[in-house]
Amino acid sequence: MPSETEGLMELWRQRTEAALDHWLPSANMLPTKMHEAMRYAAMGGGKRIRPLLVYAAGHALGTAPEALDGAAAAVELIHVYSLIHDDLPAMDDDDLRRGKPTCHRAFDEATAILAGDAMQAVAFHILATAPEFTCSAETRLSMIETLAQAAGSRGMAGGQAIDLDAVGRELSIAELENMHIHKTGALIRASIRLGALAGDAGEGEALEALDRYAKCIGLAFQIRDDILDVEGETETLGKTQGADIARGKPTFPSLLGMSEAKARAQALYEEAIEAIAALPETAEPLRWIAGYIVNRIH
Amino acid sequence: MPSETEGLMELWRQRTEAALDHWLPSANMLPTKMHEAMRYAAMGGGKRIRPLLVYAAGHALGTAPEALDGAAAAVELIHVYSLIHDDLPAMDDDDLRRGKPTCHRAFDEATAILAGDAMQAVAFHILATAPEFTCSAETRLSMIETLAQAAGSRGMAGGQAIDLDAVGRELSIAELENMHIHKTGALIRASIRLGALAGDAGEGEALEALDRYAKCIGLAFQIRDDILDVEGETETLGKTQGADIARGKPTFPSLLGMSEAKARAQALYEEAIEAIAALPETAEPLRWIAGYIVNRIH
Repeated sequence: MPSETEGLMELWRQRTEAALDHWLPSANMLPTKMHEAMRYAAMGGGKRIRPLLVYAAGHALGTAPEALDGAAAAVELIHVYSLIHDDLPAMDDDDLRRGKPTCHRAFDEATAILAGDAMQAVAFHILATAPEFTCSAETRLSMIETLAQAAGSRGMAGGQAIDLDAVGRELSIAELENMHIHKTGALIRASIRLGALAGDAGEGEALEALDRYAKCIGLAFQIRDDILDVEGETETLGKTQGADIARGKPTFPSLLGMSEAKARAQALYEEAIEAIAALPETAEPLRWIAGYIVNRIH
Repeated sequence: MPSETEGLMELWRQRTEAALDHWLPSANMLPTKMHEAMRYAAMGGGKRIRPLLVYAAGHALGTAPEALDGAAAAVELIHVYSLIHDDLPAMDDDDLRRGKPTCHRAFDEATAILAGDAMQAVAFHILATAPEFTCSAETRLSMIETLAQAAGSRGMAGGQAIDLDAVGRELSIAELENMHIHKTGALIRASIRLGALAGDAGEGEALEALDRYAKCIGLAFQIRDDILDVEGETETLGKTQGADIARGKPTFPSLLGMSEAKARAQALYEEAIEAIAALPETAEPLRWIAGYIVNRIH
């Protein structure tokens, strides 16, 4: 039987699906191929880690899930659009994503580029308009600022540029961390921050603790990803195992060795738990997610 | 000697350059290639029609230019990012833009895709944070909603999808208009609306009049573009003359004949002028821009 926390995760995943379904234009609406592509890429797949972090951060501070649905959908749409674009032939040239053909394979390149572009706009549209938020208009603007910075050239998109530039090059461990702090870490931190802001939790100690937690699990998430690229199986991963190594991408196991990479992920897990030690019982889902991130098999 | 209105246009163009320079990350900042690409595509080129419309709409309602700089930069960044992506090999495959090599030619495809992605995020970042706005936080959220809708799948990005789908097909004049209402018209309407909202002009008759004006000049702009694709010269245009016809794209002259297309643009000009007849003397720049749009040679 699943624990109470696992029940919450399942509930939050369902809320994420419902919110995405609500905010993405219907595939019957023109331009239909584009809307189909957006739904194909966004719906019914993925671990939904970022939405779970939005809900878990809000839950820790006592915010109701209804007030978090919009932010959960927004961060996931930014993540999905980045996957669509990163998979393009001009970038990682991937054929498989979340266990099915990548968006440009299932449709075409132009549709994939435009579907990703439109998805980014949907994310900001949600933050500006979702009626269920309980925070002030000023806080909403802070949320939009947070998401725009996390998605942009000094966050996720910039991280992908650093990543492409690193292919086939020798990186130091500091350079590798810097790349991931931008590419994956920025949006994970934003997810936690949006969850906290949606309930108008303000700028207090709790927000700082949550941010320290977010930094640790963001990096731990990427180390685990690199470990799985070596040890995982394509079928379980839903993407091609060994793809990073085959492309000559630097990874934590290739720089640190496998056992040191695992120890590093474990240390970051412990640091994350420590960061939120002062938060109440309601922070339990955040602890669960930290454990899930370093132990997951896909 | 330039007229007072032409002096305002020059001033507003300079303010646009300054605002873009202010909001785009420095090319010295990492990732440098991406930031160079963003500046290469956005700075020192283009007619800046959309920013001029922001300033002119605000000016008509008595808003100071300082309060309009952010919105002017935001609409132009959305426009420039769409040009970068539309020029990609998977879409229009263009080599020349604003008189110089397109972004993916000057850099590479991956950098062009990511520079466009990051540019969209900058636009929303500006609307959420620019300190000079004089409107309320609620109005800012309306501006973000307006821009997100205009940029998305039911606006500009959707229009490009309809456009790609139309290549080599026979379109009716209604279908052609529908495509342009999305592809170009949505962002032109948004520019006018943002200019009006930035001064908290509210939802009154003036806003309706401005929107009718915007719809007319949006379509007139595109008809003139199609005419120039036939009659213009590559050197003056800054993009390849005859490119649309060569790609088998339907155009207004190809559907209506050249003289009917010109009559149509003129009629839309007159309708635009009529729409804002009740606005005060300060609407003169809007009248000037309408004339410029139907008479321009590039």
